[in-house]
Amino acid sequence: MIVGKVVGSLFSTRKSEKLVGNKFMIVEPVTSMDGAGDRLIAIDIIGAGIGEYVLVAQGSAARVGCDMADAPVDAAIVGIIDEGQDWSK
Amino acid sequence: MIVGKVVGSLFSTRKSEKLVGNKFMIVEPVTSMDGAGDRLIAIDIIGAGIGEYVLVAQGSAARVGCDMADAPVDAAIVGIIDEGQDWSK
Amino acid sequence: MIVGKVVGSLFSTRKSEKLVGNKFMIVEPVTSMDGAGDRLIAIDIIGAGIGEYVLVAQGSAARVGCDMADAPVDAAIVGIIDEGQDWSK
Amino acid sequence: MIVGKVVGSLFSTRKSEKLVGNKFMIVEPVTSMDGAGDRLIAIDIIGAGIGEYVLVAQGSAARVGCDMADAPVDAAIVGIIDEGQDWSK
Amino acid sequence: MIVGKVVGSLFSTRKSEKLVGNKFMIVEPVTSMDGAGDRLIAIDIIGAGIGEYVLVAQGSAARVGCDMADAPVDAAIVGIIDEGQDWSK
Repeated sequence: MIVGKVVGSLFSTRKSEKLVGNKFMIVEPVTSMDGAGDRLIAIDIIGAGIGEYVLVAQGSAARVGCDMADAPVDAAIVGIIDEGQDWSK
Repeated sequence: MIVGKVVGSLFSTRKSEKLVGNKFMIVEPVTSMDGAGDRLIAIDIIGAGIGEYVLVAQGSAARVGCDMADAPVDAAIVGIIDEGQDWSK
Repeated sequence: MIVGKVVGSLFSTRKSEKLVGNKFMIVEPVTSMDGAGDRLIAIDIIGAGIGEYVLVAQGSAARVGCDMADAPVDAAIVGIIDEGQDWSK
Repeated sequence: MIVGKVVGSLFSTRKSEKLVGNKFMIVEPVTSMDGAGDRLIAIDIIGAGIGEYVLVAQGSAARVGCDMADAPVDAAIVGIIDEGQDWSK
Repeated sequence: MIVGKVVGSLFSTRKSEKLVGNKFMIVEPVTSMDGAGDRLIAIDIIGAGIGEYVLVAQGSAARVGCDMADAPVDAAIVGIIDEGQDWSK
């Protein structure tokens, strides 16, 4: 998994029907993390807000691990990181 | 998932029979996104046009999530991004 | 998937018995594509020749999508790109 | 797999219920290894401590191979490297 | 798959019990190959020696394709490349 910051969201009206009802968040991996700065789109099963630091699972884990085994999803926010740690560096 | 721009398509007459009937689109991830500028080929289950910004799922999600579990597909356009957001930067 | 050029082949006499009978082609992703220049080894289920531009599927798609679900294969040539497009740039 | 050094841990109170009970370790791949310096978050099924060098499995291996097939996990510490080898260079 | 050179091995006494009995080899992808120079750890089902050039499968292929579907393994040596080809450049 990686730690990223939620920096936005996006909307897609015309999409796979299996994706209907999901929120698509734009996540930017923090500086120290694999893929730093290279944003990705993750569904959000936790309810994260803009600016929060989150734990993102990628690959089949996002799909199978979030009870969406049949959906075209390859990244998911699976946790919100507790405050108190400085991820900016 | 990543956001990319559809920049073209390609044709393959001699291909796996499991791929027959699919459209192959050339997608370029936008600047802020993971894999920026590094194009990939995705099947299109939505009907995206050249120049549109799309949501691309990769890995087993593209195959299993698009009802093509037995096909050699590792990337798929699964949504068209609504207009109104500037992806050029 | 990515588009690459077949630049060679290789031979492995001592290998997993599940790989017996396969051809191993050396594929170089074209300049515009993800992984440009970084060669990979793909099995060939189509019959591509040296110098041809091909469509390569990676990950579980190569294995499951090419009827080799039990073999240690993570990349496969699944189509030959029709002529007429300039992939050199 | 890759070899990394455990450099910290993180806490997530609001997370997928399938992740409850797991420890999340921050692992930094060693210099010679794929992904050198780019940290990732792995669950720990072995009991590694800060400063130890560990073997990390990624992708579906972390999930399926650690008896967590239904959890959103894409990286796991699956071994602690024996002392005696210099991983600092 | 990629071609790499076996440059060493490692030992892990405290590890997942599903990994017991495996050899862990340190493989360095050759210069022309994807991931050049970035070492990874692969199990060895063939019996490769230090200095040999090998074919490495990654991802679920390593696990499922090597009859270790339940083990936390994401890379495996699945063939030894025949001599006669120069991989040093």
